[in-house]
This record gives sequence, C-alpha cells and structure tokens, in this order.
Amino acid sequence: MTFNDMDFMLTTASAKHLYSFAKDMSIYDFHCHLDPQAIFEDKPYHNIVDLWLAGDHYKWRLMRTNGIAEDLITGEAPKSEKFRAWIETVSRAFGNPLYHWSHLELKTVFGIDEVIKAENWKSLYDRLNNILAGGVISPRSLLRLAKVKFVGTTDHPLDDLVWHEKIAADETIDMVVAPTFRPDEVFVAHANFANFIDRLAIKTGRTITGFADVVAAMEDRIAYFVAHGCQASDISFGAVQYLATEPEQLDEILTKALAGQPLTEEDKAYWQSGIYLALCKLYHQYGLVTQVHFGAVRNSHSRLSGQLGPDSGFDSMGDQIDLADHLNRFLDALASSDQLPKMVWYTLNPSYNVLLANTLANFQANSAGQRSQLQFGAGWWFNDTKTGMIDQMTHYAEQGLLANFIGMLTDSRSFMSFQRHDYFRRILCSFIGDWVEAEEIPNDDDLLKPFIEGICYHNAQLFFNN
Amino acid sequence: MTFNDMDFMLTTASAKHLYSFAKDMSIYDFHCHLDPQAIFEDKPYHNIVDLWLAGDHYKWRLMRTNGIAEDLITGEAPKSEKFRAWIETVSRAFGNPLYHWSHLELKTVFGIDEVIKAENWKSLYDRLNNILAGGVISPRSLLRLAKVKFVGTTDHPLDDLVWHEKIAADETIDMVVAPTFRPDEVFVAHANFANFIDRLAIKTGRTITGFADVVAAMEDRIAYFVAHGCQASDISFGAVQYLATEPEQLDEILTKALAGQPLTEEDKAYWQSGIYLALCKLYHQYGLVTQVHFGAVRNSHSRLSGQLGPDSGFDSMGDQIDLADHLNRFLDALASSDQLPKMVWYTLNPSYNVLLANTLANFQANSAGQRSQLQFGAGWWFNDTKTGMIDQMTHYAEQGLLANFIGMLTDSRSFMSFQRHDYFRRILCSFIGDWVEAEEIPNDDDLLKPFIEGICYHNAQLFFNN
Amino acid sequence: MTFNDMDFMLTTASAKHLYSFAKDMSIYDFHCHLDPQAIFEDKPYHNIVDLWLAGDHYKWRLMRTNGIAEDLITGEAPKSEKFRAWIETVSRAFGNPLYHWSHLELKTVFGIDEVIKAENWKSLYDRLNNILAGGVISPRSLLRLAKVKFVGTTDHPLDDLVWHEKIAADETIDMVVAPTFRPDEVFVAHANFANFIDRLAIKTGRTITGFADVVAAMEDRIAYFVAHGCQASDISFGAVQYLATEPEQLDEILTKALAGQPLTEEDKAYWQSGIYLALCKLYHQYGLVTQVHFGAVRNSHSRLSGQLGPDSGFDSMGDQIDLADHLNRFLDALASSDQLPKMVWYTLNPSYNVLLANTLANFQANSAGQRSQLQFGAGWWFNDTKTGMIDQMTHYAEQGLLANFIGMLTDSRSFMSFQRHDYFRRILCSFIGDWVEAEEIPNDDDLLKPFIEGICYHNAQLFFNN
Repeated sequence: MTFNDMDFMLTTASAKHLYSFAKDMSIYDFHCHLDPQAIFEDKPYHNIVDLWLAGDHYKWRLMRTNGIAEDLITGEAPKSEKFRAWIETVSRAFGNPLYHWSHLELKTVFGIDEVIKAENWKSLYDRLNNILAGGVISPRSLLRLAKVKFVGTTDHPLDDLVWHEKIAADETIDMVVAPTFRPDEVFVAHANFANFIDRLAIKTGRTITGFADVVAAMEDRIAYFVAHGCQASDISFGAVQYLATEPEQLDEILTKALAGQPLTEEDKAYWQSGIYLALCKLYHQYGLVTQVHFGAVRNSHSRLSGQLGPDSGFDSMGDQIDLADHLNRFLDALASSDQLPKMVWYTLNPSYNVLLANTLANFQANSAGQRSQLQFGAGWWFNDTKTGMIDQMTHYAEQGLLANFIGMLTDSRSFMSFQRHDYFRRILCSFIGDWVEAEEIPNDDDLLKPFIEGICYHNAQLFFNN
Repeated sequence: MTFNDMDFMLTTASAKHLYSFAKDMSIYDFHCHLDPQAIFEDKPYHNIVDLWLAGDHYKWRLMRTNGIAEDLITGEAPKSEKFRAWIETVSRAFGNPLYHWSHLELKTVFGIDEVIKAENWKSLYDRLNNILAGGVISPRSLLRLAKVKFVGTTDHPLDDLVWHEKIAADETIDMVVAPTFRPDEVFVAHANFANFIDRLAIKTGRTITGFADVVAAMEDRIAYFVAHGCQASDISFGAVQYLATEPEQLDEILTKALAGQPLTEEDKAYWQSGIYLALCKLYHQYGLVTQVHFGAVRNSHSRLSGQLGPDSGFDSMGDQIDLADHLNRFLDALASSDQLPKMVWYTLNPSYNVLLANTLANFQANSAGQRSQLQFGAGWWFNDTKTGMIDQMTHYAEQGLLANFIGMLTDSRSFMSFQRHDYFRRILCSFIGDWVEAEEIPNDDDLLKPFIEGICYHNAQLFFNN
Repeated sequence: MTFNDMDFMLTTASAKHLYSFAKDMSIYDFHCHLDPQAIFEDKPYHNIVDLWLAGDHYKWRLMRTNGIAEDLITGEAPKSEKFRAWIETVSRAFGNPLYHWSHLELKTVFGIDEVIKAENWKSLYDRLNNILAGGVISPRSLLRLAKVKFVGTTDHPLDDLVWHEKIAADETIDMVVAPTFRPDEVFVAHANFANFIDRLAIKTGRTITGFADVVAAMEDRIAYFVAHGCQASDISFGAVQYLATEPEQLDEILTKALAGQPLTEEDKAYWQSGIYLALCKLYHQYGLVTQVHFGAVRNSHSRLSGQLGPDSGFDSMGDQIDLADHLNRFLDALASSDQLPKMVWYTLNPSYNVLLANTLANFQANSAGQRSQLQFGAGWWFNDTKTGMIDQMTHYAEQGLLANFIGMLTDSRSFMSFQRHDYFRRILCSFIGDWVEAEEIPNDDDLLKPFIEGICYHNAQLFFNN
C-alpha cells in the first residue's frame, strides 16, 4: 500500500493489467481553455507559482475553504507565501481531486513523488524552482511529455485565429491545435450582447437588423473557423431551455436588445431557443461537433466576483425545472428536420446524469452509421472527481454503449493539468477492472484492449474527424 | 474469473451461498405485457429474430445507439441481416444490462454459453435456428423452463378477457394467468379519451354524462375483471399530481372533453386527480393491488415515433416539480378516509428513489396487519440494471423493511425475458452477501434463507393474495 | 464473520486500525433534542419500554411498516406487548440503521450482544428490566458511558433556561449542557406566530408593532441565551427561500399576521427571507454557529398526525425549486456585508448533497482564518444511514476539505442514542480505510490520526468555540 506509486488508484490485478493498455496512449484533448499564443511562443516558466497557481480557480477555491486570506490567494503576497498557503491547504485535502492531481503533477512533471506535507513547503518550493531554472519546462514541453496530439482551444467567434495560423504554419510543432467556436455573447442574456452584435456586423461587413442577419453573420464566422481547422463548437448556458419561436418574435427581441430596452426572462429564453437551434443547424451543415455545457451558476459571491472578475472560484452547479421536457423538445426540433449535429452534452449537476444519458438515447438514430452521435460528456468541472467519473461512466454504460465513449478532456486553463487524463485512465481501468474481477465481462484481451484504447484515444479521434 | 459461468455476478462466497436458496425458486411475475393469446395458443417459434428481436424496443434503442440503420432494426431487411446487426451491437455492450440478459438467455434457453462476438453471428444464427427448428420452444415451454407459477398480464378495461377464460378452463396449463386492470384511456389527457368513454358506455350499458357515471361504469369493469381472477390494477402517468377537486368541476371537464373542446393543463391535472382517487377507492374496495408507474416521457422523437408508433424505443425518464407535496397529499387523501389500497410505486427517474421510499413510510400504518402495504417497486425499465436494482434495494432497506419487499417482475413483452428474474436474484444475493461479508447482518441461514426466499417469491405471493 | 463483534462494520485491516484512533474519543454532541430537566434530575429508568421506545418516532415508523397495530405502538397496550412488537419488527430490519443501532445499544449499554430474534423477546424483556431494576441506568450515566463532554440542547427562544442554570451550578455534573436558540415560531408560516409575538413582547418588555421591533426583541433573547452559554442557533424550514425585501413590506406582513388576516405564500416567503436574514446577522454579531435544517415535509398523514401530534413518525423529505438560486442569493446577501456567520447546513433530501456541498464553497472566503466556516452537516434524520453518511462525506471531500468536517451529532430525543456516534465512527473508519487500502491517501499515522480525531471530536470543539 504505497500512495502515488505506479499502481496509484489501480485497485485490482485486472485494473493494473488494463492500465498497461492505457498508460502510453496519446491524448486527444478536444476541449480545453489553453492559450494558443502561449503554445506558439512556448516560453519557459521560471516560478512554480506562475506555472501552478496562477489563474487556477480550483486551487483558489480550496484555499478559501481552508481559511486562507485572499491576499495569499489572488492578492499581492509574495510568491513564496502563496506557495506555502497552497501546500498547507493541499496537504490536508484527502479525498479531493486536487490532492491527487497535485501529487501526479509533481511526480510526472518534476519527478517528485513524496507525500506533500505542510512542513516541507520550503524544500518543495526551492526544488521546483530549481528545476524550472533549467528553462526546459514550457507549454509545448508539457504537451509533448503528456503525448498530446490534438488540442481543441476555446475561441471567441470574432477571433482572427492568428495564433492558430502561426502554429499550423510552424512545422516544428508536432501536434494539431484547432480552434473551437464558442459564441457565448450571441445570447441576449449576455452583458456584452449589443456590443457583440456591433462588432459582428463590422467583422462580417453585414448590416444586422433582424434575426436572420445574425444567423447569416454567424455562418460567416463558422465558415472562417472551419477554414482554420475548427472541428467543434462549444457553448455554456444555465438551464437547458427550448421554446418554439417565430422569426418575427426573434426580430423584436433583437430590436429591443439593441435599443438597450430591458428584456424579460421570457425574451431571453425565446432568444436562447431560437439562436441555439439556428446555430446547431449550421453546426450540422458544417460538420462541427457541438458541445453543450449546461447548469453553471456563475459569480455567486457578488462582492469578491466584482473585485476579481469571472472565473475566480465563485461558480457552482445549478438546478433546473423541466429538464426532460426542454431537452427532448430541443433535440426533437433538430431531429425532425434531420439536422441533428454530432453533440457532446455535459451537465454540471450530476443529479441529472442518468436522465441525460437516458434522454440522449431517444435521438441516436442516424443514417450515417455514426456510433453514439449524441455523447454524454465526461464528468465536468466539479464532477471531475473519482465519484463523478464513475457515476458518469456507469450511466453511460447502462443507458448506452460505453464502447463508443469519447472519453476524457481537460477543460483546463493550465498546461500542468494533462495529468487529469492519467487520473481518468487509472479510474477507468479500476472501474472496468472491477467488472472483470466480478466476471461481469469476459477476461479477454482481444475485447478489452480495443475497448480501453478506444475510450482513451481512438473514439474521440474518430468522432471528431469522421 | 470466467464470465457467465454458474457464479455469474456472484462476487463473494456469501453471494454464492445465498444464491443456492434463490436459484430454484418459482417465479410470481406479477406485472408483464405478455400476450395471453400467445400463452393459450402456444405456437413454437421458428426464427430467432421473431423470438428475440421482434417488438423488443430495448434492443432497437441500443442498435440505434450503435449507428445501425433503421432498416436493419424495424425495417424490411432480411432476418439474418437484422440478427447480424444485433450481434454486432450487443457484443460491444459492456456494462449494459442487455449484455448480461442476452448471455443469460442464450445460455439458459439454448445452452449456448460462449461470449457473444460479432464475427460469430452466422454460426450463432444457424445454431439458434436449428434448435428452434425442433419445434419445442414455445411460450409455455419458456414459462415452464423459468418455473413461472403466476403471470399478471396488462389488459384494457374493455377487454372481454376471453384468452384468460380459455387458459383458466384448460387443465393442461399449470400456471395462473391473471388479468391486470390498466385504464390509461380514462385520463382526459389520453388521445383516445372521448372514444373510450363512448365504448365504455356501450360496454356497460350506461349513459355517461357526468363524472359519477364514469366511475360507476369503471366499477362495472373492475367487477368483471375481479370475476376473472384479476388481483391488481396498473397505471402509468407522467408526473404524480394531486389537486383537491369538486364533482361539478370534473363534470365540466368531462363535458368539454366529450364535446371535443380544448382542455387546459389544469383541466388534465384536475381530472387525473379526481379519477385516480376514485379508482383507488374502488381498488381498495375490491381488494386489488394498485400499481403506479410514473415519470415516463413518451414518443420523444416525433418523426420516428410517427412512423413506428408507440413503444418503439423513443421513451425516457421525466422529472417533475413538487413530487413530495403531490405524493403526500394524494396518499393522505386516501388514508384520511381509510381507503388506501395495497400499492406498488415505481419511479422511472431514480433520482426520486430515496424520496419515494421515504414518503411511502408516512402511510404504512394499517389495522389489517399488512406488512409494507405500500411497496417501493423494483427498478423499472431503464433502472432494470445492476445500479438501478442496488439503489432501489438500498433505499428500500434504509427507509423501510427490505424483508417485506415483493421483489422482481419482468414488465416485458418477451417470453425470453424471464432470465431477468435470475439476473435480479444474482444481484440480490451479491448485495445481501456483501452485508454478510461486512458483518452487517448475521451469517445465519435460519435468518437468511427465509429472507432471500421471501424476496424471490413468497412476499409477492402473500402480498397479492392476502 | 461475526455480526456485531468488536470489528462490527470495520471492513478492512485499515478500517480496524483507524478505529483504534476513534473509538475512545469523547463526544461533542452539538445538536440534540435531549431534555435538560432530565439531565439535571437524572432519574433512573425502570422499564426498557420507557427508556427505549417512548417518544422514538423512528421506531414507531418502522413498526407501522411491519404492519403492527397502532395500539402496540403509541396506544394503551401493555409494555410487554409493545416490546414484543418492537422486537418482532427490528429483528427483520436487515439493512436499516435501526437494526444496527439497536444491536449496538443493547451491547454497549446492557452488555447483551446476541442477535435480536423475535422468539427471544420475553427473555430480552426480562433481562433488560432486571438490569434496569438495579437503578443505575439514568440520563447522566448514559452520557458518561458514552464519554459525552458537551450536549447542545434545542430550546425555545422564550425559555428561561432554568435547567441549564441548575446544571451549570452543579459541580458534580462533569459535562457542558448548553442551550441552542431555535426560533421556529418567529416565522409567520408557523401556526403559533401571533401568540409567539405576544409572548415575546411580554417577555422582553417591548412593544412590537413593526419588523424592527421583532428583531430587537429577538436580539434581547439571543443575548439572554448567550449569557447562558449558548454557542449555536438552529432552525428548520421546508424550502430554502430568499427574496430581497423592504422593511415596509415586512411591517405590512406583520400587521396582517397579527390581525389574523390570511397570508399568501408570497407573504410567507418574504417574511422568511427578511427575518432569517436579520437573525443570521445577529448570530454573526453574537458569534453563534448557525445551523439550518431544510427540506422536511411534516405531519403528512393528517388523520394520525391529528391524533398523535407532531414528531410521531409522519414526516419525510421534500423537494424544492431553484435551490441553487435561493441558496446562492441568501448567502450572498450575508457575504456582501461581511456578516456571514459560521453555519452548518443540513439537507433532508440527499439528492441535494452535491449541490449543497458545492454551493457552500462559493462563500468560504473569510479574513478570520476560519477553516470551512460553512459546514455541510452530517447525514440528517433519514440520511443517518450508512449510505447517507458515505454520500455526505464523499461530496464533502470532493467539493471541499473533509479534514475540516465537524462530524457527527445525534439530533436525538433519546439518551440511548449516543451509539450513533460509534456507528458513525465505524463507518467513517471504513470509508477512510478504503482510501488507504486503495492507496488513495498515504498510509501514514502521522497524517491519519489527527485526521480521524479531528472529525470525531476536535474539529467540532474548535468550530463551536473559536
């Protein structure tokens, strides 16, 4: 029983055996928030705090939970003190994924496999910075170390994608870095909506006065993205909502929004229904995998969110009314006209896992031979935990065909976080290993090897490219 | 570790020991959708596709999830091609109950215990059809093989029950086949409501102009069913809804519905509240066990549902507002006048398992000495999985007395599906075996044998007959 | 495999080892419903039915579920017959916490470690009463046996706390018995609201005509409680609701309520929002830990509740709309003005466990260095089960820092129920022991001993006193 050794999280002989298939697989990281400029420029890191803590709201949130003062989290305290506060926190985080991620990251990237203890913070800080001083740890070195073959970034519809162009043009970069079309601001509920429409009009050279103009301009941008290697779109909204709409109604809402008039909750729901249906039809037409992240409540702590801005650790899972009804009617609206794109659905509230997995199966029929065209996405954000992963995979398997699962993604802002794929693979192998041990599936490598390899890499690669 | 051998799903020595009590028990299948005509006529099957795939929307749904074209599922493709597509699908279904059911079915009915592999489809097809060519596999041979002593079919209130009469009159049939009263069409939300009321009036010789007439006519039919051996009623609706109603209000809704006028959602909820309360009082009076299946969303894929009709694999689990409130007030309305029938409550959305188990315990008090007169029903439909069963039994035990649980039912349209009882028993024995292994219950056969036998057979037999 | 021996519920070698740290720890029972008068008077018990069954609605509920007649539960039947009916019931309760609690109670308090069997009821009854006849089993002897150092009772705001004064003045009582401020009646939805306001005015010598008067009078009582050693408040309501309010609006609602005019659901929600926000600000000011028990539906069986009164076994878990939204906005309203007290949140519906744990983490930031100032409370009432505890601790760990968890409380009316702490500790040690066995945490006593001891005692002691 040695924590964090090569058998970490592998609870049975079968798990260890299955992990031999998984551990050296490449990574197809189809959704993350990495900065393409950082990938292109590939500047080495010089301080562990910059590499490990900067911008990482998962860690900030945990530090606040440990009673750490804000100055040591997002403030002006010295880096060494911030590191100390983090080590004091994470060393106490039994059962939290950050405890596991952090140990895996130190082991894999820095070769440090000791148990993280509060009293060793200074020694750790010095050793980590010494290693960084060598100047060899940079964004791309971390991607190579993790065998990342594909990175799907998350990009604004009006982005010119210059960094993606530079990366594509650089033959020394041996991985694909593709943009993802993520149009949050085209929803009227977004604070930047009116401004976005203005910029969209300028960018596309179109006059935008009606709903159809918005859709046409968005199509221009989708085409631009596709020409730059885009394989996928993404969106995040709170509740899944679908109401049937008429074009005139959407035109009126647009007029109100552009005139700065107040919108009702109903206006917002109608617009969300109309614009997202139209976008999904375009995604179908252009062959983009369509990712939906739903159920986040954002910036709940208004005072600190006001000070620190979005993505600072004050977001959490929402609940919603009539998910089954809205989800079924939305998917039916697309299926009725045979315009359902390949989709990946992620729920932030895991109470909806089984309902989501079960509902997607209503709409899997397709004439293209696409295996599981509607994917139940891997445990997202607060579900990127052992429990969250196992619950997601259990319901995926019981309500569908886990053999088709496109597997893990980092969804991260940090180049350190590719160990989350290793973490997922270890949990996957223990999960499937338990089935082997319990004789629930055959103990036959001819079946198990492609099954594991598919979930680790091949299924995603096929799903996004076929 | 041999998949699908005699210890299949039995994970501990205790599980194996407990299964020795369970495996040879008879079956009291108190709720299914088997056709009584097929039981009476007992025609042998000649092609495995007719026996195994026809009408089985569980399998259709999984095939669609595997990207199989509809022609190979519900279309005109040759039977051999349909079989091939099914084998290709099920061979990939690790973790799905269909993987387990299918292996158990081939082993028990046909003596074929090999792992199902896509490349063996032709060999399987030929061997299965060869066995069927012997002409000995028929509805009743399958019932006898599974030791089925009681079959509760699901019947329309206006059915004359002629096939039940024929079966009862045939002394060579050594099992009870009893009808179940299932009046879906007496809810105004049903598309056939007005037509049903017309036919109900004709059948009972009554003039139906008010709510009381509907109830009186329904009582005639209940009495008819009881005279034909009926022990139970059943119903399925979406949300559990209960609103207090007045007779005049129900009369008005009836008048509107019969006149073809549009009904509001409120009208439908009031009618559901009024008619189901009245029916439950009749069920109490006539001593019928009252089954409630709630939470299904049906025919979600409107295009394919329109082509293929209901029960084609486009149904899924719903969610609802205020379940606790509606459920408590409905049960209280019956308990207040001491007219609560014995009931079995099944939820399609397992998120409500714990709330349902917990709420039923509010209303268990009775002066008849009935043990657990309100039963939390076994994992239904999409919960007829290992996870679904374990979750249902866990909450049943923690919120009540699992020793009183009436256990498994097939709820199936297929004569092949009695292996689901064996599957349940194996999971039950592993579930209880884990308690023995963890020393959570005494390792004492004097206690364990009646406990297991009760859940497998005796509890249901007592519950439906006392 | 011996049921109920010293290794009861301890499933691994690691669990047994961890339990060596836990088993002799004292108890800080920060929330229960014990009667301080009974503690002071310390009268010995003379009949096992008085000690074990009287007032215990958990047991009553289970007896009803077993079909026991009400006369044997809450009626006039002889004590021996009531005991027999209970033994007949509990002996069948595999998987129910009452099965475990009862065995632990008989073993620890009476030294009887046999399996409870229906046929032994008379022998048990006689032996237990013989032991009680010795006159040594009394409230305080039971507290001492369980090593209880602190008891937090639950008290009405207008209580004079005379029994608490007597206990504090009695130097022979070697434990702290502190009152908890529990003002259910200050919510307008409570049937006693108007009467409570009258008595509050008299007690505090204030004239109460507006909302501010209510708050001022409540502050008087809080100060009185604090002067009597109070460390905490408590409340129980159905749904978590928070709507922004204006003082005038609250004044109007108060006027209506005191005039006996009917209140709308909206009035009740606004009052709940306003009064509870004001109370929480006072709790923050006076340094009281603030406990919230939400989600109970009470007295559902109106006929029996009417006969037997509240707390008779007819309560169950509720569900609610928009929990995430209400909870976030309520906590934000307190955090905005930096008036968030230390809180403990308990949900009766475990479907909300993960959302609750996750949402609390939005508001952990504090400048006092308080570790996890918002606590996700231990599995409450119907969740005081193995599954309930494990689910609560899993989500606590994954969404926060389990190392800060303040652990178990009895929430009980019975002096027999301190074995629930032992039950919790055994489950805790198996839960954490599984992590050690799976190498998910280091197998290092320097880390594990303080972790276990913290959850068993020290964290609560620190949380309530710092």
